[in-house]
Amino acid sequence: MVFWKRLFNNTDISNTDQKSQFKGEPVKLKGQTDGQTRIFFTREREIDLYELEELCDAVGWARRPLRKVKRALTYSFMVVSAWEVKGNRKRLIGFARATSDHAFNATIWDVVIHPRFQSKGLGKGMMKYMIRQLRSEDISNITLFADPQVVDFYRRLGFVLDPEGIKGMFWYPD
Amino acid sequence: MVFWKRLFNNTDISNTDQKSQFKGEPVKLKGQTDGQTRIFFTREREIDLYELEELCDAVGWARRPLRKVKRALTYSFMVVSAWEVKGNRKRLIGFARATSDHAFNATIWDVVIHPRFQSKGLGKGMMKYMIRQLRSEDISNITLFADPQVVDFYRRLGFVLDPEGIKGMFWYPD
Repeated sequence: MVFWKRLFNNTDISNTDQKSQFKGEPVKLKGQTDGQTRIFFTREREIDLYELEELCDAVGWARRPLRKVKRALTYSFMVVSAWEVKGNRKRLIGFARATSDHAFNATIWDVVIHPRFQSKGLGKGMMKYMIRQLRSEDISNITLFADPQVVDFYRRLGFVLDPEGIKGMFWYPD
Repeated sequence: MVFWKRLFNNTDISNTDQKSQFKGEPVKLKGQTDGQTRIFFTREREIDLYELEELCDAVGWARRPLRKVKRALTYSFMVVSAWEVKGNRKRLIGFARATSDHAFNATIWDVVIHPRFQSKGLGKGMMKYMIRQLRSEDISNITLFADPQVVDFYRRLGFVLDPEGIKGMFWYPD
């Protein structure tokens, strides 16, 4: 099984081309031989909304108004993303965000990995990166609402289902 | 069964005394004869942290650093509270807050009703007030994590348990 290995922390990578300057955490696919391709995780929020929509399209999510997506990104406590960088081109391949009270709780939403990068450990790596970042902000209670098919994925990351009988609930209008 | 009846919406109540001016939504216990006592729900955030701590003490919650509680209140999307007002004195008798991305999702935390006001419909009234306020902010996805003993309380308010198998999960360190 391949997995992503963290190489450096919060390293600012500067290449010769302005467009390839990328502030983030580089990760490397074990055994990766293509030195031209790099993968990064970052908390930077400069995400093109159309590129994000394209990523969400790729996994079949229903489209949402970009005006509201922009607002959600602005008011999310944390936005993390994964990027494939080749020379001076970069491509959004993963995304997640969290709401928070900036003190105790964070709730993770909209976790998405491009289908071509699924089952390669990228999602696991991105979520570990996000948990580390949330912990570094002194957030002790990290929560999420998991679809049935990803419950085991999150369990392997240390998430616990209904701890002490606590149940996730959603409000629906009558 | 007694219950709280909403009388007015967003009414600014002005009394003769400056201290008794209270911006909020008045509610009334059915059959209530004591005209001197009024109950209000409000989204105003002027909450004395020590009074909030006292309320949380009354239901046996573990104490939390006031510095962090203050931060959580500041960064919560919405704070609602219930007050008992007698003449120019007001007393905090209920509290809840919600984190949000200001666009799609809100998650409700720290719902507390003073023991003397429990089982009288005040919690139900306060949560209905909060849901109404969240809906008025165009939030469509209202979520929470419910302890086992309050699952039925939230169910009666229209909250659904694990809809489509979606599970609430909490991250715990290894």
